[in-house]
Amino acid sequence: MKIHQGVPEEPGLKTALHANGTNIEGEWDKVFAAIKRCHEIVHGMGAPRVSTVIKLGTRTDRNQTMDEKIRSVEGKLAGR
Amino acid sequence: MKIHQGVPEEPGLKTALHANGTNIEGEWDKVFAAIKRCHEIVHGMGAPRVSTVIKLGTRTDRNQTMDEKIRSVEGKLAGR
Amino acid sequence: MKIHQGVPEEPGLKTALHANGTNIEGEWDKVFAAIKRCHEIVHGMGAPRVSTVIKLGTRTDRNQTMDEKIRSVEGKLAGR
Amino acid sequence: MKIHQGVPEEPGLKTALHANGTNIEGEWDKVFAAIKRCHEIVHGMGAPRVSTVIKLGTRTDRNQTMDEKIRSVEGKLAGR
Repeated sequence: MKIHQGVPEEPGLKTALHANGTNIEGEWDKVFAAIKRCHEIVHGMGAPRVSTVIKLGTRTDRNQTMDEKIRSVEGKLAGR
Repeated sequence: MKIHQGVPEEPGLKTALHANGTNIEGEWDKVFAAIKRCHEIVHGMGAPRVSTVIKLGTRTDRNQTMDEKIRSVEGKLAGR
Repeated sequence: MKIHQGVPEEPGLKTALHANGTNIEGEWDKVFAAIKRCHEIVHGMGAPRVSTVIKLGTRTDRNQTMDEKIRSVEGKLAGR
Repeated sequence: MKIHQGVPEEPGLKTALHANGTNIEGEWDKVFAAIKRCHEIVHGMGAPRVSTVIKLGTRTDRNQTMDEKIRSVEGKLAGR
């Protein structure tokens, strides 16, 4: 298994490290399989307790990548 | 499907509503199946975007129920 | 200073411990003064890094206590 | 008042927009003054209820910028 930006790499998942966490983009089941794998890995390294915070968004109206989300907010802030 | 305290009822899951969210206790796969079902239900009610915050803890050293977690903190705060 | 449910006691603040955190009810400045004090206390006990997650809600339409929030959700879930 | 990346600009605060939120770097009181101002602005735009999630970290051992935090994690992941 390969780890990319702190998240197990899997086809269909995109990750983006930022200063206070890692964003993950993909289908629900793949995203949560990766997060579960993270907990298993950290437990496997000897930590008896692992804590994670997930800020989770789903949308059914359209696909939107992480880059598009940033551009959308930047556009709104610029008054476009 | 029956809903209990805002969470789809499922054998093996315990829920506790508090003033700012709902705690869920159970095995990983069941917990996240319930959260996924919540998103599906709210999308099904017409919301194109659904956002959730999950504060997640796993431990491998022992089982501990929600009630035991509260008593443990209360005990520590009381100096026991 | 007296600590109540893990939060420095202060007139005007109400706290409620639950299985995965503590809810605090009160005016903005008092709430965040208490949270700041928590970080200072834990740093003072020797921890070089302290991490907290805050799920924060403000409303301008009316006052609503923590108990009223729980009853409101229970009422909606009961179909009332 | 000038808004930068969704956060009221203030001397001493640095902000970084990412795909799922905005990171803020600075002294405690300035950071929370900015977040309070955000809530006031959104209430002033007509929203009766405003909800925010804050993942908060403080450290007393050394100063570390947002860029340094990213480089630190990238270094650890690269095995350095």
